[in-house]
Amino acid sequence: MLKVAVAGASGYMGAELLRLLFGHPHVHVIAATSDRLEGEPLEALYPHLRGLTTLSFQGLDAERLAKEADCVFLALPHMESQKAVPLLRRCGRKVIDLSADYRLKDAGAYATWYKTPHVDAEGLAEAVYGLPELHRKAIASASVVANPGCYPVGAVLAVAPLLKAGWGRGEGIVIDGKSGVTGAGAQGRKVEPMYLYTEANENLQAYGVATHRHTPEIEQELSALVGHSVTVGFTPHLVPLNRGLFTTASVPLAKTASTREALDCYREFYAGEPFVRVLPEGTLPTTRAVVGSNFCDVAVVVDARTRRAVCLSAIDNLGKGGAANGVQNLNLMHGWDERTGLGAPPVYP
Amino acid sequence: MLKVAVAGASGYMGAELLRLLFGHPHVHVIAATSDRLEGEPLEALYPHLRGLTTLSFQGLDAERLAKEADCVFLALPHMESQKAVPLLRRCGRKVIDLSADYRLKDAGAYATWYKTPHVDAEGLAEAVYGLPELHRKAIASASVVANPGCYPVGAVLAVAPLLKAGWGRGEGIVIDGKSGVTGAGAQGRKVEPMYLYTEANENLQAYGVATHRHTPEIEQELSALVGHSVTVGFTPHLVPLNRGLFTTASVPLAKTASTREALDCYREFYAGEPFVRVLPEGTLPTTRAVVGSNFCDVAVVVDARTRRAVCLSAIDNLGKGGAANGVQNLNLMHGWDERTGLGAPPVYP
Amino acid sequence: MLKVAVAGASGYMGAELLRLLFGHPHVHVIAATSDRLEGEPLEALYPHLRGLTTLSFQGLDAERLAKEADCVFLALPHMESQKAVPLLRRCGRKVIDLSADYRLKDAGAYATWYKTPHVDAEGLAEAVYGLPELHRKAIASASVVANPGCYPVGAVLAVAPLLKAGWGRGEGIVIDGKSGVTGAGAQGRKVEPMYLYTEANENLQAYGVATHRHTPEIEQELSALVGHSVTVGFTPHLVPLNRGLFTTASVPLAKTASTREALDCYREFYAGEPFVRVLPEGTLPTTRAVVGSNFCDVAVVVDARTRRAVCLSAIDNLGKGGAANGVQNLNLMHGWDERTGLGAPPVYP
Amino acid sequence: MLKVAVAGASGYMGAELLRLLFGHPHVHVIAATSDRLEGEPLEALYPHLRGLTTLSFQGLDAERLAKEADCVFLALPHMESQKAVPLLRRCGRKVIDLSADYRLKDAGAYATWYKTPHVDAEGLAEAVYGLPELHRKAIASASVVANPGCYPVGAVLAVAPLLKAGWGRGEGIVIDGKSGVTGAGAQGRKVEPMYLYTEANENLQAYGVATHRHTPEIEQELSALVGHSVTVGFTPHLVPLNRGLFTTASVPLAKTASTREALDCYREFYAGEPFVRVLPEGTLPTTRAVVGSNFCDVAVVVDARTRRAVCLSAIDNLGKGGAANGVQNLNLMHGWDERTGLGAPPVYP
Repeated sequence: MLKVAVAGASGYMGAELLRLLFGHPHVHVIAATSDRLEGEPLEALYPHLRGLTTLSFQGLDAERLAKEADCVFLALPHMESQKAVPLLRRCGRKVIDLSADYRLKDAGAYATWYKTPHVDAEGLAEAVYGLPELHRKAIASASVVANPGCYPVGAVLAVAPLLKAGWGRGEGIVIDGKSGVTGAGAQGRKVEPMYLYTEANENLQAYGVATHRHTPEIEQELSALVGHSVTVGFTPHLVPLNRGLFTTASVPLAKTASTREALDCYREFYAGEPFVRVLPEGTLPTTRAVVGSNFCDVAVVVDARTRRAVCLSAIDNLGKGGAANGVQNLNLMHGWDERTGLGAPPVYP
Repeated sequence: MLKVAVAGASGYMGAELLRLLFGHPHVHVIAATSDRLEGEPLEALYPHLRGLTTLSFQGLDAERLAKEADCVFLALPHMESQKAVPLLRRCGRKVIDLSADYRLKDAGAYATWYKTPHVDAEGLAEAVYGLPELHRKAIASASVVANPGCYPVGAVLAVAPLLKAGWGRGEGIVIDGKSGVTGAGAQGRKVEPMYLYTEANENLQAYGVATHRHTPEIEQELSALVGHSVTVGFTPHLVPLNRGLFTTASVPLAKTASTREALDCYREFYAGEPFVRVLPEGTLPTTRAVVGSNFCDVAVVVDARTRRAVCLSAIDNLGKGGAANGVQNLNLMHGWDERTGLGAPPVYP
Repeated sequence: MLKVAVAGASGYMGAELLRLLFGHPHVHVIAATSDRLEGEPLEALYPHLRGLTTLSFQGLDAERLAKEADCVFLALPHMESQKAVPLLRRCGRKVIDLSADYRLKDAGAYATWYKTPHVDAEGLAEAVYGLPELHRKAIASASVVANPGCYPVGAVLAVAPLLKAGWGRGEGIVIDGKSGVTGAGAQGRKVEPMYLYTEANENLQAYGVATHRHTPEIEQELSALVGHSVTVGFTPHLVPLNRGLFTTASVPLAKTASTREALDCYREFYAGEPFVRVLPEGTLPTTRAVVGSNFCDVAVVVDARTRRAVCLSAIDNLGKGGAANGVQNLNLMHGWDERTGLGAPPVYP
Repeated sequence: MLKVAVAGASGYMGAELLRLLFGHPHVHVIAATSDRLEGEPLEALYPHLRGLTTLSFQGLDAERLAKEADCVFLALPHMESQKAVPLLRRCGRKVIDLSADYRLKDAGAYATWYKTPHVDAEGLAEAVYGLPELHRKAIASASVVANPGCYPVGAVLAVAPLLKAGWGRGEGIVIDGKSGVTGAGAQGRKVEPMYLYTEANENLQAYGVATHRHTPEIEQELSALVGHSVTVGFTPHLVPLNRGLFTTASVPLAKTASTREALDCYREFYAGEPFVRVLPEGTLPTTRAVVGSNFCDVAVVVDARTRRAVCLSAIDNLGKGGAANGVQNLNLMHGWDERTGLGAPPVYP
């Protein structure tokens, strides 16, 4: 059994990680940290885990984690991960970082979008962007994996096949993301008025217009994929769902193609992928169909009238958009079947 | 008191019309029709109206309506309005049609998008598109007003000032609409699996991609406004709200401008409008703030990086997106203050 | 125009009061207080009120309110009202208190349930319990009206006719209340984890079992009504609604009666009441039918098998359960038609 | 591998069964029936199962099921099960019936509450009520197990320890059940107006007052448990949740006891139970903590003032209230660990 620790386990991402890891056949969770809740049993915060664990939260102590764990998940606010990773790397521990700290390969871009310099250039150089569909091989041998942001997972998987095939153009792309409330806030559990039931319920709004930090992440991955600069206009929205993230991407077409041909292109690109489901023509994704799982459902529709492709995807923001994708990375890093511990079907309805 | 009838009063749009008309100081509702519910008291279908009316549904009989009412609202499925309007016009009755039948000025476009020929060319020629912010004068003297679709209201009001000022380009526009469930279906009350609580709750999906019939309506109005052809890629979404419609439009900029300048342009365009609220810089619309009212909240953000403007609006799809806008038209057509009967603040939260 | 102030206007109850008062034809709102938001324009907190008021929040200063206002609504936390009321009374101002401070006539009961002594015995002696259906006359001449708690409104109106007729027994009564989230917390806007969207959504729970402070209020009113001691077991629940409060009361029958007879008894008791709707046999209340209004929908079903009556009511916790009932009291206190400013139909759906 | 069939797989109960059975290590699902969807692949109705099964719906043919399956789950409307069970029994197949047909041991009671005579007296005599916490041994050797209704599971588990200990009285019990929308309707997927999103959302209502068919089931099990007649007043409610069922039972106390003593009594009663979690004093159940699982969370609070105990439970109506409990029965009937295939933690939030 691999000894695994979860640092930053008091947010929804940490909770989902624990839920998945407790059911993983090759993993033993040895620690879950939260400075605020140090000493509290997990089940005090997480009534759903009552009876399933006797663990208590411990304070975050990177040295102790490095000593006791084989692999550490970091579900910390950004800037916190950068402090822990160097020590964990020095001790030879594998790290799967769910924060934003190691996603942008360009430290300058990090400084621009996060308004603070990056302090671990070495770790950054070594980190692998943890989207298995694009970087499977590199992940398998990585020591630090930067688990992607939830919006980038949805956006990149929706658009990648079209761009890679050269059918889409690298500019004029417009991406509209809609996320459930567990995806909002650094820890997904911020107690701010906007996230109150009475405020978020029966409400819908855009936020972070033209400034959301997942934008450069999307552009980095799409640009690397096609070998030239890709720019996207990205607008995130908060929608009244607990879980679920829907992406609608409009991409100018570089060549004439039918919806059927575009779907064939998607099916080819994702052939053999265990967690991407390209839907049949006429069927569109719904968040409901992926909740609680690591699936990403994808569709594309060609709008010949406007010479654009509408690329759609649905994920669980805590699943393929976070914790479950992190477990897929864990599996890859340890040579296990990618589906290990991720076999439970989505919970419907 | 003006004698008003509502034809097609068993859907949500009809229900909202009744709610507003019962509170209108110059209106007496003399009839509400529903073939299916003929003879039933309104309060059997609408428990919220219990004690507020003694009306019963009557079957749809255009001749009778023409004889008894001064003004008729049609909240019928499309193709049904075309049958009733000619007779009502011949009898000199004013008509406010909430169906799609008289919105597209080009009968050919109607035939293309609605897959059936238009049968009332004369009425179509005379009908005025009922968006007061663009056609106030024409509405005031119209006999037939085509109340706009909910998505077009949100989209046109979000984008109009930018295009009118020549700051936006007429192609490459991408519009993403998100509607609450009362906006879905011809009557908004279709009993189809997709609209079940268990299916729509905690779910989000796109529909009608590249084929939604509100697309030509948006293009018609924007093209007429700027005097040249405007094309839009439009994708509607079903979101778990009862009421509310949020529009996110991405428009390529034709000139360099700051968000502040763009907002000034919006404020100028909407100066004096009683129901459009241009939000201050840094504030974005929310559907919550307009529910139950005729308000449209609007914002614009310039994304200098992509040379695009993100134009946002929030309406109540049954309010400014339907029934309340219809009452605004009623007021205009009868020379009353536009706000008559529409003064109740939005219901929050 | 009556000059009215709202003290404690930053909670949901205050917001609803403002919404109603802005539409009241005889009222001019001259002040809204919030110590936390002093100086902020109302529309910064309440986007739905944008354009409808130019007021800014002012700090709570009872002397100033006493000088400037004719009538003051207090939507303050309990214990705060007791500090303001004596001064307002001395200045001859009428007060409608939405806190719990003046509801329990017995200062000892107050001390027991609120764990703190009452400090305004004189005000308490003079205050009238503001449920018009039971105390209409006393309210009309009162200087201090204690607006009832939301649960007591629902419970008392559901059960009163049965007990008053002597058909129900005063013990063995079990009352189950279910409230939307705006009803929770002293101010209805507490930023506590339990009220986060992600926690309250898709969740249901009981709270305050055997200890909820509305219990003695229910017992006081029912006991006074029948002239002997009535005891109730009351359990409140938090349900995923913004607005709405549903009451299910099970009352042991003292005599044999049919559902029809019981309903006749209810109709007689509530004859002429403008805001209580006794539903026809076979129809049960829904919260949906009263949202946004001052209505209370009531039904009773006799369960002959268990010799119990099931008494049901639905209100909007911010409406009849709070602010709208407060406006009804305002009308009574000033000799206006009780329905003034309360005519807008419920918002459905 | 045990060959298992699911008859009536187009409702939500059938869907949940399939979700659980696909993950069960000792089970091979060989058939799923739906007359309406015969020939359709499962994934056409259930997008969440896309890629997880190649099964198609087949028409219901009891003979074929008897021939091909070792064990059959019936998730049919009541009266349909009675037709299939005799044939399956004759062929020696084990049956787990999720309908109401074999729950009431008294055919007369069945006729009274279901308004139709029972036609399989022999099967009825042999069937075991499938609540493992009360009938574990009998289930283990049963050929026909009547899986309990969702409300009875919640009610019986909430109240059983108190009554069994002789601390509660058998009359004057009042039970209030609140169920998510997947629990409503015979198949949980009825397309009726009441279950539309727009009607059920932001709404709460009681239904089936004094007539709900789960009432005699609750009374049967509690009476059998204590050895004398127990009567309950039961009121079910429809609440805006997809999944979740909360029970609030008020039981007159036969002896004086503290909350702590009552909880001890519960812990003793449920000692060793893998799926009942008695919560610590001060903690109350929430439906959120059990969604997607077979857990039942239970608490009891003594209200000394009214000499009543408030007994609370939370289950997933499709979990412990249906399909997952059915899988627990399957495990018992085949000598497997009861937890087999039921190990996934609840999905939170």
